[in-house]
Amino acid sequence: MKTSLNKVCNLKGNTYFPLEKLKLLSISCLTKVGASEKNACEVADVLALADVKGKDSHGIARLRRYVDGLAEGKISKIESLKIIKESPGSILLDAQNGLGQPASIFAMNKAIHKAKQNGIGIAAVRNSNHFGIAGYYVDLACQKNMIGIAFSNASPQVAPTFGAESMFGTNPLAIGLPTHPTAPFLLDMATSIVSRGRLERLQWERTEMSKGWILDQTGIYNESLSEIISGLKSRSRYSLLPLGGSDEKTGGHKGYSLALFIDLMCGPLFGGSWGRHVYGKGGANLGQCFISINPEMFVGLSDFQKNAQQAIFEIQAAKKSENQDRIYYPGEQSFELSERRRKEGILLSDIVIEDLFQLCKTYEVPFPL
Amino acid sequence: MKTSLNKVCNLKGNTYFPLEKLKLLSISCLTKVGASEKNACEVADVLALADVKGKDSHGIARLRRYVDGLAEGKISKIESLKIIKESPGSILLDAQNGLGQPASIFAMNKAIHKAKQNGIGIAAVRNSNHFGIAGYYVDLACQKNMIGIAFSNASPQVAPTFGAESMFGTNPLAIGLPTHPTAPFLLDMATSIVSRGRLERLQWERTEMSKGWILDQTGIYNESLSEIISGLKSRSRYSLLPLGGSDEKTGGHKGYSLALFIDLMCGPLFGGSWGRHVYGKGGANLGQCFISINPEMFVGLSDFQKNAQQAIFEIQAAKKSENQDRIYYPGEQSFELSERRRKEGILLSDIVIEDLFQLCKTYEVPFPL
Repeated sequence: MKTSLNKVCNLKGNTYFPLEKLKLLSISCLTKVGASEKNACEVADVLALADVKGKDSHGIARLRRYVDGLAEGKISKIESLKIIKESPGSILLDAQNGLGQPASIFAMNKAIHKAKQNGIGIAAVRNSNHFGIAGYYVDLACQKNMIGIAFSNASPQVAPTFGAESMFGTNPLAIGLPTHPTAPFLLDMATSIVSRGRLERLQWERTEMSKGWILDQTGIYNESLSEIISGLKSRSRYSLLPLGGSDEKTGGHKGYSLALFIDLMCGPLFGGSWGRHVYGKGGANLGQCFISINPEMFVGLSDFQKNAQQAIFEIQAAKKSENQDRIYYPGEQSFELSERRRKEGILLSDIVIEDLFQLCKTYEVPFPL
Repeated sequence: MKTSLNKVCNLKGNTYFPLEKLKLLSISCLTKVGASEKNACEVADVLALADVKGKDSHGIARLRRYVDGLAEGKISKIESLKIIKESPGSILLDAQNGLGQPASIFAMNKAIHKAKQNGIGIAAVRNSNHFGIAGYYVDLACQKNMIGIAFSNASPQVAPTFGAESMFGTNPLAIGLPTHPTAPFLLDMATSIVSRGRLERLQWERTEMSKGWILDQTGIYNESLSEIISGLKSRSRYSLLPLGGSDEKTGGHKGYSLALFIDLMCGPLFGGSWGRHVYGKGGANLGQCFISINPEMFVGLSDFQKNAQQAIFEIQAAKKSENQDRIYYPGEQSFELSERRRKEGILLSDIVIEDLFQLCKTYEVPFPL
């Protein structure tokens, strides 16, 4: 029988936790199931950035995925990133079914190093696992005054335009431009209208879903969020819709095309799985791509920042639409939230806290919260 | 007084023209106003590809823009593409206000050459003019068995999320993957829901516009298409909406972010104009970016094509949504249309024919159609 968290600590409702405590929790659980300290720290860091930036579904709430994955042998504990092919501006790596985050950090740093020398660099990873938020890796590039682009394929949950079943993932695309030393341009988007994570967050917040995000093969659309989420996972009945929606008239073929571009790069080009085969019988076998560009090979960082800040200033000063008092640049809302959360701590829902408590219990790790 | 075309040739309604005749017409007009034969042929080729692929608004219908531009001195006749900075994987070029197409063809070929040696290459052009369809350049890469990415900023016609005036262009993004020797994956999209060209096509076809494509600051939305098109050009009252629409709930911030990424690269990074300043007092000063990736540095072209064709086959075999009998891959519809149009010729509307007739009259070029 499960011991409930509330019986132990009397935590009620949503509670704030310091970021460092959450990181320690991640590291403790991951090392307990066999991850090296370096790998555990890197995964913890990616989860923590998701939490401070408000990408809560990809933060500590996803810890179980990696811990269970390692414990059950779905993710390999062995650290062995293999170089398959390398040229002055490119590298192809095989993560050999290890954790996605350490492979991705290594790859993005390789792309950055190549871009510093050659103007642009690309690093591809195959046979990888979930890498957390794509935004982490482009943020890494921005911290080094470099442009970063990152994308990955994902488990099949999205239907193509004119299709009625899930044929590829929410295939995230992130772009970071070092427009500002601490608050750069940061885009981190699913190529579907919303990610499954967004639905999970709504579930924790006990709020409603917008119509038009999903395709229900029955045409009925009246189940609960939790039924829709599990239907997406099992690929029965529900699919997410690409950015732009189900119709060519609203540009749905553009979201579909962007997602398929990412899938064809990450699978067919890098030698990984694609489409319905991702997270199939052969394991996750995800592909990830990291591109970096060196601003010094164009107008130079200093002029780029001056020009870009002026361009952003002009957009923010534009006339606002009705009932709006602010226009944001990509990454601005996350940046402001992260400033606050680093001070105040991370708000976790009781559903997430209970899950972490059970996770610690399963793996006999002291629950530090 | 204008002589009407109908009085001269008795052409009525929509008429088909052989592609080669349209190319000759473009070349005659462009050389007449001072373009070199090489440059005129390149512009004609870009226009012809738009016409065969069904991007009619960017085909021969746009010839006037380049001819008038050269004649009026808005576009420089001098051929002088200047290299500003170069590294093994990158090059920054200044088109010195010359035609956008020859500069872009040169740049894409440079990116391809660099990618062949370094795995990936990037070529940027600043101080450029309209380059026609972005898809032309990635098609060029595919013909050489290389991956191509191309994007450009454009005249300000799109409002940012939560904004109510045009602050950047429809900033097109094209991606080509050499998945097949003759019918590759080709995406060529505006980062807005639709381009102004789409509205122009509706006008020629005398069909209606879908709601939700534009923002009308008055909230009324009851003017004619021609009034909306001229309002977009003059930046008064109307703006196009980014891919995803006006709302964050439908992902409008994603389209806005993609457009702004392109604008910040093409303007602030390459040293060109940005946002509202594009096509401003200092001329067009557009920026264009061309990236190429070499499949041989990953699984190799042959395996890539085999895998990608299988991936595409699986998507096309998926369950169809109601009232649909086919799922297309990006570029497939354009490819099928181009096969037909190369044989049958190009269907031009009477509005376009009349405009070409007047153009020939103005510049004293024999009307060859």
